[in-house]
Order: sequence, then structure tokens, then C-alpha cells
Amino acid sequence: METIGRHVISELWGCDFNKLNDMDYVEKTFVDAALKSGAEIREVAFHKFAPQGISGVVIISESHLTIHSFPEHGYASIDVYTCGDLDPNIAANYIADALDAKTRETIELPRGMGPVEVKKAKAL
Amino acid sequence: METIGRHVISELWGCDFNKLNDMDYVEKTFVDAALKSGAEIREVAFHKFAPQGISGVVIISESHLTIHSFPEHGYASIDVYTCGDLDPNIAANYIADALDAKTRETIELPRGMGPVEVKKAKAL
Repeated sequence: METIGRHVISELWGCDFNKLNDMDYVEKTFVDAALKSGAEIREVAFHKFAPQGISGVVIISESHLTIHSFPEHGYASIDVYTCGDLDPNIAANYIADALDAKTRETIELPRGMGPVEVKKAKAL
Repeated sequence: METIGRHVISELWGCDFNKLNDMDYVEKTFVDAALKSGAEIREVAFHKFAPQGISGVVIISESHLTIHSFPEHGYASIDVYTCGDLDPNIAANYIADALDAKTRETIELPRGMGPVEVKKAKAL
């Protein structure tokens, strides 16, 4: 098994409050995002906080996707980490669109190659 | 709920093969690491791959801890992401020690503050 992976970290701002606070919607979005990127889903675990906010993970054969949402701030903290030939940006972009993010700050980190460093950063 | 978080990304090399391939040990290590850092555990999901390797997550009230292990390479890819007053390095260091990591490459990213950038990087 190859260690090399790509880890996309996205900070999404200006997202829709209701979508960020709808656990079923967020979970379905993440499952769909994983499938669209070509990943094989292994575990799905989401948790709803009171009074608001969702944390969740989809573990895939190729690593994981996570979210922590803060509906009151329109903010979602996203990680999409894939190994193999998958492009994590496919899932990350799908999620940002599904949450109606107005601002996306994204960095990509190569993993499993030795030293960790930021490959590229962009704001959309 | 405050958006500001600290995300520690660690690449662990030279880890013990058997520990990296022992799902019960890895899961217990991650639960203990979360508790030692003062986190409140919400969800625990680990998966064992054939012929070897483990992926897993501990979702905490304060974000998450994840691992992807590659025993055949002595490599584990670790994320410890915490919000609030918790120090993610407490858990990350505990995990590195428990897996007998000989080399640790670590970066820390502030999350939830706007643009993402690497705060600091270190190799131990």
C-alpha cells in the first residue's frame, strides 16, 4: 500500500445556516462527495451538537473526509484526505457548493512523503 | 461556540509494525490520547484493512483525531484537531510515543480564523 496522499484543508465561510445545521443533509453531502471522488466508504459517523453544529467523518479506503460546522458563524471546517489516484478537490468542491460557501480558503498538503509542507494555497 | 481551533498534522515514521497493525491497541491509544488532552469523546470508529493497515477516528466535542497506518512502511499519518483551550500537542505526542515513532514531522495550522496557513513546522 502506497503511503502517498493528498490532504485538502478548506475553510468555508458564508455557508447557509440551515444546511450547516442539518445533520442528514451534511451526512448525505459527505457520502455523495466521497462517492463522486471515486472513494470506497468504510465508516460514517456524524454527531449533532446542541444548540447547533455538526461534527462528522467519512472514513474511506483512501483515508477520510471530516467536517466541523458552526452554523452561527456560517463556517465549516473541512478536511478531505485521499490516497492513490483520487483527487480530493473533487469532493472538497462538491461540499463547498452543497453548503453554499461564499468564501473558500484552501490549502493542499502532500502526506506520507516525509516532511509535511503546504503545496499550495488559494482563496476563492 | 468559538470557531478557533488548532490542527496538528504529524507524519510518524519508524513506528513499531505490530503496534501499527493492532487495531485494539491503536484505538485504545487514540481514546487515551483524547482523554489526556482533556477532550470529551463523542464517536469512535476504526477500521482494519487486509493485509494490514488501520484507519480510524475519534470525534471529540472539540473536533477530531484521525490515523491512517501503513505498518509495512512503519508510517502513521496523524491528525489532532482541537478547539477551545485544549492543546493538540498533548495528544499528538502521546500517540507518537505509544507507536514508538522514531521520526516525527509536525506542522500546526490555526483553523477557523480566515485564511489557512502553517503556523509552525518541526521535525523531532
